[in-house]
Amino acid sequence: MTVKLVRTQGVTAPAGFRATGIPAGIKASGKLDLALVFNEGPDHHAAGVFTRNQIKAAPVQWSQQVLTTGRLRAVILNSGGANACTGPLGFQDTHATAEAVAAALSDWGTETGAIEVAVCSTGLIGDRLPMDKVLAGVTEIVHEMAGGLTGGEEAARAIMTTDTVPKQVALHADSWTVGGMAKGAGMLAPSLATMLVVITTDAVAGPEMLRAALNKATGRTFDRLDIDGSCSTNDTVLLLASGASEVTPSQEDLDAAVLAVCDDLCAQLQADAEGVTKRVAITVAGAANEEEALVAARAVARDSLVKTALFGSDPNWGRVLAAVGIAPVALDPQRISVSFNGSPVCVDGAGAPGAREVDLSGEDIDVLIELFAGDASATIRTTDLSHAYVEENSAYSS
Amino acid sequence: MTVKLVRTQGVTAPAGFRATGIPAGIKASGKLDLALVFNEGPDHHAAGVFTRNQIKAAPVQWSQQVLTTGRLRAVILNSGGANACTGPLGFQDTHATAEAVAAALSDWGTETGAIEVAVCSTGLIGDRLPMDKVLAGVTEIVHEMAGGLTGGEEAARAIMTTDTVPKQVALHADSWTVGGMAKGAGMLAPSLATMLVVITTDAVAGPEMLRAALNKATGRTFDRLDIDGSCSTNDTVLLLASGASEVTPSQEDLDAAVLAVCDDLCAQLQADAEGVTKRVAITVAGAANEEEALVAARAVARDSLVKTALFGSDPNWGRVLAAVGIAPVALDPQRISVSFNGSPVCVDGAGAPGAREVDLSGEDIDVLIELFAGDASATIRTTDLSHAYVEENSAYSS
Repeated sequence: MTVKLVRTQGVTAPAGFRATGIPAGIKASGKLDLALVFNEGPDHHAAGVFTRNQIKAAPVQWSQQVLTTGRLRAVILNSGGANACTGPLGFQDTHATAEAVAAALSDWGTETGAIEVAVCSTGLIGDRLPMDKVLAGVTEIVHEMAGGLTGGEEAARAIMTTDTVPKQVALHADSWTVGGMAKGAGMLAPSLATMLVVITTDAVAGPEMLRAALNKATGRTFDRLDIDGSCSTNDTVLLLASGASEVTPSQEDLDAAVLAVCDDLCAQLQADAEGVTKRVAITVAGAANEEEALVAARAVARDSLVKTALFGSDPNWGRVLAAVGIAPVALDPQRISVSFNGSPVCVDGAGAPGAREVDLSGEDIDVLIELFAGDASATIRTTDLSHAYVEENSAYSS
Repeated sequence: MTVKLVRTQGVTAPAGFRATGIPAGIKASGKLDLALVFNEGPDHHAAGVFTRNQIKAAPVQWSQQVLTTGRLRAVILNSGGANACTGPLGFQDTHATAEAVAAALSDWGTETGAIEVAVCSTGLIGDRLPMDKVLAGVTEIVHEMAGGLTGGEEAARAIMTTDTVPKQVALHADSWTVGGMAKGAGMLAPSLATMLVVITTDAVAGPEMLRAALNKATGRTFDRLDIDGSCSTNDTVLLLASGASEVTPSQEDLDAAVLAVCDDLCAQLQADAEGVTKRVAITVAGAANEEEALVAARAVARDSLVKTALFGSDPNWGRVLAAVGIAPVALDPQRISVSFNGSPVCVDGAGAPGAREVDLSGEDIDVLIELFAGDASATIRTTDLSHAYVEENSAYSS
């Protein structure tokens, strides 16, 4: 399979998908805040992965139920409010939104039920959505979308919150395509490291095949992006297949394509994370097993003292050892080694010559930790902890 | 038992203890950097609690071995270098320090073996100590200490690193006393939430009685102080008993006195934590058991988004729910409630009227989370995440 990744295209790159974004007035700023992704078919297969947070937003509760059918005709997404922790009335709002999308699509000529409409929301937790604006927006956006087959970028823009750039990518295989968009600049964490992602494909693939590809891909990408250890109430990743290419890829090829799209979106999320000044990859090698490699890498990726040192371009490797030493994993304190950007800073548990002079002034920092407890390895993507992170997050709801 | 807490006294408040601090030249700044606490007896009973980090500094490895005897005559402590991750040579340095203290005390007239001397170090991880200065300092400090029965405050000052004030306290019971000193302004975390603490008492108490009192006290105090989730390679808490009061308290009274001293030192550590602008207490109530209450409270206490919101005096309770929701504990999403400083902000999983207007501009913030899963509760002390924290920790080793 020869593939080409293009970042100027997104969810409307595959055949059979329409999308757009509009300003519905949910955000006080008047910016784009409502997005629709519509699958024209002929197939309407879908799979989803959701936050593992016990506190699930109303749209997550709704979409999880919808996805049990393995079928989706449309996804409606809003920024400007998470509709999380809003009680039974918040769930009614989500339900009403899905009903309104179904009614508008039916009016437009595509008979649709609410059960075929997933809902995603992002923004501040705890407030009800302005439903008059949401419902008026739904009618408008269906008409807007009817205008053409493009609009992926508007949709990607309409789901932004503290993101500074829209995130989208398309992967063109020989005769079929996968496209995706993502948003999420904070609250990126394990158990699903992003807020909202929609991936589309014109491949012919049933729900089981989609589910397998999506689970494998998110496990190696979004689940391994950990910006601040926080995990959202709204995290959702959806994969929709139209079958419009009439090509049925092998499971292996579909897996590879979905993984590549998720990996690229993941890199875009990391690069635009709140307050990021360094893109950091923490790799743990020589672990007893992959799970322990992940646990150890995550412990380092979440350590505030490591993250602030990296912000200061300070090769303070002792903090890396202190962080990994508290992780519940097997390691050999007499042999453990650490390198920064390929330069050894700690060998056999003690400082290497020149360790304090390693130059970390660039934007990318690779941290490699070798535990000498086995053969497994894993990488977590994270960022530094900067003044800008503190600034942005100390004044978000106000 | 009637008791009185006095913060102007420390480890030399109980009878039978001498201490002092000197500038030995370990710190480039020329500030106090070497402390000695000496137990004149008649008893020399002791107990210790150490970091659970797998990467243990040389002085921790040494002192753990020493404490297996249940006996201590002296504790030598240095700031200006952690002597962690320094390999076999670093361990030899610790051993040589203990030998030097024993020799100097023997010269002075108190026959002492190295096995009766605990060693504590704090500072940057990864560098060898300047042993010429340490060993010269040891001789000097024993002579200095010989001068009088006070000196607790100098000792408390000599163990400071990024601390801005010395921390000490004495508890006077009817006819016996417990005194203590502590240092630690960063790397405060679970599994032992401080860097170095020495507690002294003139009560008559054997090693078993001391160990029981110390374990109970640290479990409820230092283990529940979590500033940044990081855990040091050097954390050490020591309790020494001279028996000089000739009073044998009940286990219950000793437990209460040691707990009160640890609790007060803990509050002092929290108040002087790196970059602190808010003292925050996270209480989880209605948990299935105490362990789950602790796990949930710790998850919230470590959440960067919660901590930055509190820095901004922002009653962003949704972040509290998102943080507790990812903790592996039983909770009822439909009933969970949160209050800030006694004002309900979330009731039955949804926002309470006026939640966004709760005033958090003061220096103390109490967060109460009720899970409705049982009757257990626990409190974790933490702080906000401020610009000053980032500043201080991005430029520590340089």
